[in-house]
Amino acid sequence: MAVRAAVAGASGYAGGELLRLLLAHPEIEIGALTGNSNAGQKLGALQPHLLPLADRVLEPTTADVLAGQGRRHDVVFLALPHGQSAAVAEQLGPDVLVVDMGADFRLKDAADWERFYGSAHAGTWPYGLPELPGARAALEGAKRIAVPGCYPTAVSLAFFPAYAAGLAESEAVIVASSGTSGAGKAPKPHLLGSEVMGSMSPYGVGGVHRHTPEMIQNLSAAAGEPVSVSFTPTLAPMSRGILATCSAKAKSGVTAESVRAAYEKAFADEPFVHLLPEGQWPATASVYGSNAVQVQVAYDEAAGRIIAISAIDNLTKGTAGGAVQSMNIALGLDESTGLSTIGVAP
Amino acid sequence: MAVRAAVAGASGYAGGELLRLLLAHPEIEIGALTGNSNAGQKLGALQPHLLPLADRVLEPTTADVLAGQGRRHDVVFLALPHGQSAAVAEQLGPDVLVVDMGADFRLKDAADWERFYGSAHAGTWPYGLPELPGARAALEGAKRIAVPGCYPTAVSLAFFPAYAAGLAESEAVIVASSGTSGAGKAPKPHLLGSEVMGSMSPYGVGGVHRHTPEMIQNLSAAAGEPVSVSFTPTLAPMSRGILATCSAKAKSGVTAESVRAAYEKAFADEPFVHLLPEGQWPATASVYGSNAVQVQVAYDEAAGRIIAISAIDNLTKGTAGGAVQSMNIALGLDESTGLSTIGVAP
Amino acid sequence: MAVRAAVAGASGYAGGELLRLLLAHPEIEIGALTGNSNAGQKLGALQPHLLPLADRVLEPTTADVLAGQGRRHDVVFLALPHGQSAAVAEQLGPDVLVVDMGADFRLKDAADWERFYGSAHAGTWPYGLPELPGARAALEGAKRIAVPGCYPTAVSLAFFPAYAAGLAESEAVIVASSGTSGAGKAPKPHLLGSEVMGSMSPYGVGGVHRHTPEMIQNLSAAAGEPVSVSFTPTLAPMSRGILATCSAKAKSGVTAESVRAAYEKAFADEPFVHLLPEGQWPATASVYGSNAVQVQVAYDEAAGRIIAISAIDNLTKGTAGGAVQSMNIALGLDESTGLSTIGVAP
Amino acid sequence: MAVRAAVAGASGYAGGELLRLLLAHPEIEIGALTGNSNAGQKLGALQPHLLPLADRVLEPTTADVLAGQGRRHDVVFLALPHGQSAAVAEQLGPDVLVVDMGADFRLKDAADWERFYGSAHAGTWPYGLPELPGARAALEGAKRIAVPGCYPTAVSLAFFPAYAAGLAESEAVIVASSGTSGAGKAPKPHLLGSEVMGSMSPYGVGGVHRHTPEMIQNLSAAAGEPVSVSFTPTLAPMSRGILATCSAKAKSGVTAESVRAAYEKAFADEPFVHLLPEGQWPATASVYGSNAVQVQVAYDEAAGRIIAISAIDNLTKGTAGGAVQSMNIALGLDESTGLSTIGVAP
Repeated sequence: MAVRAAVAGASGYAGGELLRLLLAHPEIEIGALTGNSNAGQKLGALQPHLLPLADRVLEPTTADVLAGQGRRHDVVFLALPHGQSAAVAEQLGPDVLVVDMGADFRLKDAADWERFYGSAHAGTWPYGLPELPGARAALEGAKRIAVPGCYPTAVSLAFFPAYAAGLAESEAVIVASSGTSGAGKAPKPHLLGSEVMGSMSPYGVGGVHRHTPEMIQNLSAAAGEPVSVSFTPTLAPMSRGILATCSAKAKSGVTAESVRAAYEKAFADEPFVHLLPEGQWPATASVYGSNAVQVQVAYDEAAGRIIAISAIDNLTKGTAGGAVQSMNIALGLDESTGLSTIGVAP
Repeated sequence: MAVRAAVAGASGYAGGELLRLLLAHPEIEIGALTGNSNAGQKLGALQPHLLPLADRVLEPTTADVLAGQGRRHDVVFLALPHGQSAAVAEQLGPDVLVVDMGADFRLKDAADWERFYGSAHAGTWPYGLPELPGARAALEGAKRIAVPGCYPTAVSLAFFPAYAAGLAESEAVIVASSGTSGAGKAPKPHLLGSEVMGSMSPYGVGGVHRHTPEMIQNLSAAAGEPVSVSFTPTLAPMSRGILATCSAKAKSGVTAESVRAAYEKAFADEPFVHLLPEGQWPATASVYGSNAVQVQVAYDEAAGRIIAISAIDNLTKGTAGGAVQSMNIALGLDESTGLSTIGVAP
Repeated sequence: MAVRAAVAGASGYAGGELLRLLLAHPEIEIGALTGNSNAGQKLGALQPHLLPLADRVLEPTTADVLAGQGRRHDVVFLALPHGQSAAVAEQLGPDVLVVDMGADFRLKDAADWERFYGSAHAGTWPYGLPELPGARAALEGAKRIAVPGCYPTAVSLAFFPAYAAGLAESEAVIVASSGTSGAGKAPKPHLLGSEVMGSMSPYGVGGVHRHTPEMIQNLSAAAGEPVSVSFTPTLAPMSRGILATCSAKAKSGVTAESVRAAYEKAFADEPFVHLLPEGQWPATASVYGSNAVQVQVAYDEAAGRIIAISAIDNLTKGTAGGAVQSMNIALGLDESTGLSTIGVAP
Repeated sequence: MAVRAAVAGASGYAGGELLRLLLAHPEIEIGALTGNSNAGQKLGALQPHLLPLADRVLEPTTADVLAGQGRRHDVVFLALPHGQSAAVAEQLGPDVLVVDMGADFRLKDAADWERFYGSAHAGTWPYGLPELPGARAALEGAKRIAVPGCYPTAVSLAFFPAYAAGLAESEAVIVASSGTSGAGKAPKPHLLGSEVMGSMSPYGVGGVHRHTPEMIQNLSAAAGEPVSVSFTPTLAPMSRGILATCSAKAKSGVTAESVRAAYEKAFADEPFVHLLPEGQWPATASVYGSNAVQVQVAYDEAAGRIIAISAIDNLTKGTAGGAVQSMNIALGLDESTGLSTIGVAP
C-alpha cells in the first residue's frame, strides 16, 4: 500500500519542491495539501510547474485536515514559517511520521534557540542529515525528523570530514552564496528581480544569521570539541543553489594527502555526496534540481589552511530532497528512492 | 531485455540532455557514448551534472563504435552538427532505430534544404512531433526519426490548432525568444555570459533563420494550404527555454469561443501539452527541465488577430525529450515513459 | 542661475533613474525630493546607488513642498503612479515646467483613456518624444510635458518611419520584451528574482495592455490613417531594457532599398537614434543606462513584411532620459545636455 | 589643450570600459585605438555600446601608432594581456604617461612574479590605488602607473584599514565573487552564458590565483608586517561587479567601536570610497558602472573576527576607472574628473 503524504505549506518554495519530488517518488501517494492565505485556491495558479496537481485545491492547515477522520496520512511534511511547526506537530499522533522542514526542532541547545529565534524552544528531533556521523542510525524508524537548514546542509557536508578527522583548528570561517529561493516567496523589495539580477550582496553578517548555531552544533559534534563559526551569507543572482566556502587553519602535520584521504573516506559510501576528482571544483549548476552534493577540498600550504567547498541545490538537498532522503530512511525504504543525483544543466 | 542506446555527440548540450533523460528511463541501458574532439575524455569533465556517468570515457564517432561487432545498440541517437548525420546514418543497419536530433532529415522539400543549408538534401524521415495531425501514426514502428528543431516544436504546437481548425489567415507572424543553450556549446564571443546576461537581441531576422521552412512545412500541412511565416528569433538572458508568440489574422466569423474550442480539442488527449486555464499565460520557468508544453491562446478583437503562445524547454521537449518521446512511440512503449511533465521551478 | 528641479516620487525606479541623470546634468540643481510611504527616510536607504544624495531626506508629496513659499522649483518631475499626476499638477503654477512621467496626459482620446485606465481623462499635454514628426516643435517652450510610456517609445521609434514614408500596411504586429524594472518597485510575487530569473513570460496579451492606444495614436499619426496594433509584451529576465520587434505587410512596390532609405532619412539628424549598419542588430545591453536607441530594419521578401527592431533602456530613453531630453528642449537647452549615448556594457 | 590619449587593446572589456570613461572625460581627446587580431575593423562592430566611436578603425598595436611621427599622445593606456606591456612600454618615451592596466608592473617582489606568472619580472611602477597609505603621493607627477588587479582593489580597500590601525591578526581569509567580465572576452566554454547563468563556482582555490601576492603586498604594507592571505575567488552569474568578504581574527582589545572608528578615519576624505551607515551592506548593483566603492565592516564578537566587505565594479574602479583616477592624479587634474560615484541601478 502506498505511503500517503500530506504537505502543510504547499504554496511556498519548499512545499513546491517537495511536491515535485513526491510526484516522482514511486512509493508515495499525495494526500492533503494545505496553505493558509492561499487555502481554497487551485495549486495550478500557485505552482504552475506542478502540472499533474494543477487542479488540486489547497485546504487550510489544520489538525483536522492533516490527521482527522478519514484522512489517513502516513507522513506529514511541515513546510511552515519558523515557529509554527510545534503547534501543528503536537496535534499529530505518535504513529504519524512528521518531517519538519522549518527550524523549530533542529537545535539541541535551548539557549541558542532563544537567542537566535526569540521564542521558547520546542524541542529537538532526530536531525535529517544522514551523512553526519551517527545521524543515519538515529533516523531509522524515527517518527519525528528535523530537516536541516539549507546553509548548514552545505557547510556541514563540506567541512565535517576535516573536523571528524582532526585535521582542522577550531575556528571555522565560512562564506556562502545562496540563490534567492532560499529567502522564500513572500514578496519583499530587496528580493525583486530588478534588485537581485546583476548583484551580489551580503546579509546577516557578523554572527547573527540564524543558521550559525546549527553549523556550530554540527561541526563541534564532528570535532568532539567546540568549534567557532564565522559565517557570512551572500545573496547571488540565481534562483537556486548554494556554494559554501569553508576554511580553517590546518593542524600541525596536515598534508594535502591526509586531507584528501579524510574526504575520500568520509564520502566513500554516500549515495549523494560526490567528492570531485582533484582539479575539478563544484558548481551549483551541476546539482540544479538534484539531491547531489559536489565537494572539493584543497590544502593551501602557504596560508596553512584547509579550504573545503560544496555545491548543493538549496531547495533539493538543502530542503525538500533532504527531507525525502530522511523520510526514506525512517520508513525503511532505500535511501535514494525517488531522488536523483543528476543535475539539470546547462 | 533493456533497450540499449548509443549517443553520438555526447559532449554537447543536446547529448547531455538526452543522457540526463535516458538515465531516468526505466527501459534504457546506456551503451556507447561518442564525441569527436573530446574522444578519450571522461564524461565527468565535460558534463559534470551527469554524476552516474562521470567515469565513462567518450569514444570516437565511428560506425564501428555505434554498430560494430559486439556492440549491440537497439537505438542510436545522433546529436551531431547539421549535415553530419547522413554519413553516419547510412552505415547503420535497417534494424537499428536511428533518431537524428540534427536537421538533416526534417524537410520534405529538397530545394528548401539546399537554399537554407547549402548542401545536398539527405532525405526525409518520419517527423518526431507526435502532436501534429497524423504524425503519431507515422512514428509507430519507425526505424528512422527526424527530431524537429526547437523553434519549430514551440511554434508548431502553439499554432497548428488555429490552422487545422481553419481559423487563421495564411500569413503567420512569429517572434520567439530562446535561451542560449539553443546556440550550442561551441564558444563564440556573442554567447559569452558577459554578453548575454542583461541583454535581449534578435538574430536571423527577415526570413533567413534555418527553422523557417520547417515551420512553413508544419503550418501549411495543418492548414491544407500554403502558409507564409515571418519569423524573428531573439536571444534571451537565460540558459533554457523558448517562448513563442504566434499570431495571424483571424478568418471571418472567428470568435474567442471558437478559438478556445479548437485548442481544447487539439490538446484534449495530449500527455505533454497543457492548454492553460483562461487568464493564465505560459512561462518558460514552469516547464524548465520537463517535456511539458504550456499553451495559451487569445483572440484580439480590435486587431482581428489570433495570438497563440507556447513555452517549452528547448533542450527537453525542444530536442532530447522530443527525441525520447518519439523513440517511445517507435518502440511501442508508453509515450510518456521516462519523461516528466513537472518543471523545475522556481 | 541653475535650473532647480523637484522630483515627486523619488523612491521608485523612475524617480531614481531621473535623479541619476539630473546629478550629471550641468544645468540642474536638485531641489525637493518627495515620497509618500517613504517620506522621512534618507534616500541612501532607498536608492543606495545615488551616493551623492545619500543623506537627503524624502519629504511628503504636497503642493507646499513642490511649489510653496521659499521653494523655488523651475521644473517639477512627477514620477507618480498612473492617475495621481493630475491632482498634483493642478496645484502647480503655469510658470513651472511640469514633466509628467506617468500616463495621465499622454492620450488624446478621452474614450481611450477611460477604456484602458477606468477613470476620467485629465487632458493632453505636449508629447515628449521629440523624434516623432512635429513633436519637437511642440515641446519648445512648453510648460507641460507628457513623457511617453516605455513600450510606446521603443515601438514608435522603431516603426514610425515605415508609416511616415507610406511603406507599411495599416496592421502592425508588435512583440516586445521588457526588463523587470518596467514593472516598478512595489513587491509582487511574480516579480521576485526567484520567479523572473531564467524565465520568459507574456502578459497583457490580446490588446489589453495600457500602452496599446498610445502606440496606435503615434503610428496612426505617422501614417495619416488609422493603424491597428496587435501588441504582446513579454517579461524578460533582466533588470533593464526593451527590445521591440515590429512588423507589418509591406505595401506594393516596397523594396529593401526603399525601406532602408526611409529609415536613414528619418534618423539622419537625430542625436539619440542610431540606425545600425546593415547586418548588425540591436541589443539592449548596448544601450544600458544610456539615452541611445538602436534601430535596425529588414524587408522579408518571402513573407512580404517589413520588420523593424529597436532596443532602448526602459528607464533611460524609455522614461527618465526621455523626460530630461524633452525638458532640455522646453527650457531651450541643447537637447543632449546631460544625456549620454554610451551604454554601460558588457 | 586637451590631453590626447591612446588605448592599446581597445577591443577587449578593459579597453571598452576605458573608452566609455574617456568619452565622458572633459580633458581627454581620444587618439589612436589599437588591437591585434581586430586591427582594421570598425569599433562599432566590436564595441556596439560606444556609439560616438562606431566608425573609428582599429590600428595595429605598434610603437609607431602609439608614439610615432605626428602621433602626439600624452597618455598611452595599455589594456593588453599579461606579459605584453613591457615590450610596448619600453618603446614609449619617458615624457609619455604610460598607464598599464595589466599585471606586469604591479609586484615589487620579482620572485613572486616569476612564481605566479612564470616569466621574467619587468619591474615595478607606482601603484594606482591612491586610497592606500602613501600611494597618492607616489602617483603625483608619475609617468608610469601600474593599475591594480580588480580583486586586489576590492580586497585592499575593504581590509587595509583594519591592518593599518593594527586591529587584525596577520592571517587574512578572503572569499570574493566576480562577474564574468573579469575573465575577459576571449571565448571559452566555461564562460558561455549557458554555463554561468544560474551558477556559482570557485576557481583558483588554494593560493594559486595570481592576484594573491598583490593582496599580500598591499595588506602587509598596511600592517607593517607580513600578512598571509587565503584567497578564494568565485565566479558569479552577473557581468560586472566584485563582492569581497575579508576577515581576520581581531587583536586583543578590539571592539566594534574601535573597528568602526578605524574605517571612518581611513575613508573620511576619500571621494570614491563610501563607508555605509551601520546596518547597511554593500551590493554590487549599487556601484554598477561607477567608480564608487561601498564598504562595511563588522566585529563578530563570538567568533572574535573582523569582517570587512566591499563592492566595486570590476571594470570601473577595478580596472578602467582606477586607471583614470590615477591618471588624473599623475596629470595634476582633480582626482574625480570624468568619474562618477553614481551606480546604474536597478
